[in-house]
Amino acid sequence: MRIDGLQYANWSEKIFKQLREGGVDAIHVTIAYHENFRETVLNFEQWNKWFEQHNDLIMPGLYASDIDAAKASNRTAVYFGFQNPSPIEDDIGLVEILHRLGARFMQLTYNNQSLLACGCYESEDSGITRMGKQVIKEMNRVGMVIDMSHSADRSTIEAAELSTRPIAITHANPHAWAPALRNKRDAVIQAVTENGGMLGFSLYPHHLKDKTECSLLSFCQMIADTAEKYGVEHLGIGSDLCQDQPDSVVEWMRVGRWTKDIDYGEGSASNAGFPPMPDWFKDNRDFHNIEKGLAEVGFTATEVSAVIGENWYRFFKDNFGPAE
Amino acid sequence: MRIDGLQYANWSEKIFKQLREGGVDAIHVTIAYHENFRETVLNFEQWNKWFEQHNDLIMPGLYASDIDAAKASNRTAVYFGFQNPSPIEDDIGLVEILHRLGARFMQLTYNNQSLLACGCYESEDSGITRMGKQVIKEMNRVGMVIDMSHSADRSTIEAAELSTRPIAITHANPHAWAPALRNKRDAVIQAVTENGGMLGFSLYPHHLKDKTECSLLSFCQMIADTAEKYGVEHLGIGSDLCQDQPDSVVEWMRVGRWTKDIDYGEGSASNAGFPPMPDWFKDNRDFHNIEKGLAEVGFTATEVSAVIGENWYRFFKDNFGPAE
Repeated sequence: MRIDGLQYANWSEKIFKQLREGGVDAIHVTIAYHENFRETVLNFEQWNKWFEQHNDLIMPGLYASDIDAAKASNRTAVYFGFQNPSPIEDDIGLVEILHRLGARFMQLTYNNQSLLACGCYESEDSGITRMGKQVIKEMNRVGMVIDMSHSADRSTIEAAELSTRPIAITHANPHAWAPALRNKRDAVIQAVTENGGMLGFSLYPHHLKDKTECSLLSFCQMIADTAEKYGVEHLGIGSDLCQDQPDSVVEWMRVGRWTKDIDYGEGSASNAGFPPMPDWFKDNRDFHNIEKGLAEVGFTATEVSAVIGENWYRFFKDNFGPAE
Repeated sequence: MRIDGLQYANWSEKIFKQLREGGVDAIHVTIAYHENFRETVLNFEQWNKWFEQHNDLIMPGLYASDIDAAKASNRTAVYFGFQNPSPIEDDIGLVEILHRLGARFMQLTYNNQSLLACGCYESEDSGITRMGKQVIKEMNRVGMVIDMSHSADRSTIEAAELSTRPIAITHANPHAWAPALRNKRDAVIQAVTENGGMLGFSLYPHHLKDKTECSLLSFCQMIADTAEKYGVEHLGIGSDLCQDQPDSVVEWMRVGRWTKDIDYGEGSASNAGFPPMPDWFKDNRDFHNIEKGLAEVGFTATEVSAVIGENWYRFFKDNFGPAE
């Protein structure tokens, strides 16, 4: 079983076919960066069209059991998430509405301060806000996973503690291995995993040691080191694959509508676009390379399966339904 | 089993308790008259709050099986519908979105011309529009029932013919019995029922012979006559009960935002508000009176059950899921 904990491709029949060629049973896809509620609904509508047009390749994912249904019919189950709480605007009632529509992950922030918490690019992190505490409770109630991939340290640690259900960092790596602003310090990974949460390892070059030149073995050794520290059961892949996206999309991610200046995020003026992927992970057909690499650095077959899919499967199973 | 095919009460714990006292297993409730998409979502949100607060009395109804679940737990299953296509605005993709949120009926028009068809108060009925034909196809695909209660004759007959699945008139009576503008002529009832559709009999006084003074036996004899003409299997109740609503609400129904003049609809300047209900049907505790009346005019016990609930149950079962 192969599950990817985060992708944001420029979706097409070509990519849906590559998901099948690569044996990817489920993916969590981002459908909002800065979109408001109505704009997010338009993105759900676009996916409904794809589900109709390509119902031999993909199907909607609502619960973990849909992965079983997808496997049985040789398709990929698609789960939705937001990288910003902008889809709920200032209305907590939209959490349940969007869960009903299929949203299963929501970041409490993108890079900036949100109504709920603080993003990792702000200079001051004042932690979870008043509304943030209410929204965490509501997400826990309905079964929408709190994702802190882009949030600042204090906010992330507080979210892990306030949440009565496990939270996730769907796409990031340990800061100690690659000291990018978006990668996570030990105290953060500790807080998330000791509360039952998941860390999805990112293949986005800005999150990798040596970026595009990162070696497969360096990536897999980093996973082995993380497993030793925090337990292999908390680890998965969240590739952050942005396949076939034009550079205008990375600008939308970074700039949204919040500034008139250009913000280069993890890039720079001279390197503003999407960076090229490492040659051992170009697209959805390359998960077998990671499996090979994990075996080479000493993972057992059971552990490889856990990291490549079984851990996310268990996490989906426990966290997408209403609280008991 | 008791099912009401249309209500629009001013909902409260008192009314939810009366539903239980009256043994009403399911109701179809209107949640939009002129609301746009976002406003309709706010109404879904309000119902989500009621489902949380009163989960001992009511539960969301999505499929007919929820009526079984409601009966088993001594609750009323609540199904949603719109009396106007305003919630989909000009966007056909919102049909599937709103179906996912729980909408199961949508009128193609309220009293006026809509983007889809013609309402019964217009002087000219040009039938189903271009968008209307597309929306009928989409409603058929996802399992949202076409309701023509407020539509003009030609539009209704065309909808019955164009739809590949049965349609409904959830709340109206035969025009021959009570010649109100909103009641339905023979050709209309014929077209709806011969395509497998349902007619829900209204208790709204403006639709009754002798209005508030209408006798129970006159109402039940009218049902008997309709059963003889069109078959008892096509008949149910759609009480149109607007319990505890202030008169400002009937003004909103009639006037919406489409006119600056006052439109009195079925009322008049001297009688602008909600008319008083007949004394044998004041609220949800009075369905047993109708059952008694139906028996008195000659219905068998099986036929009474069919009209009071079983016919709607079968119709819900066949028409709320995706087309095969």
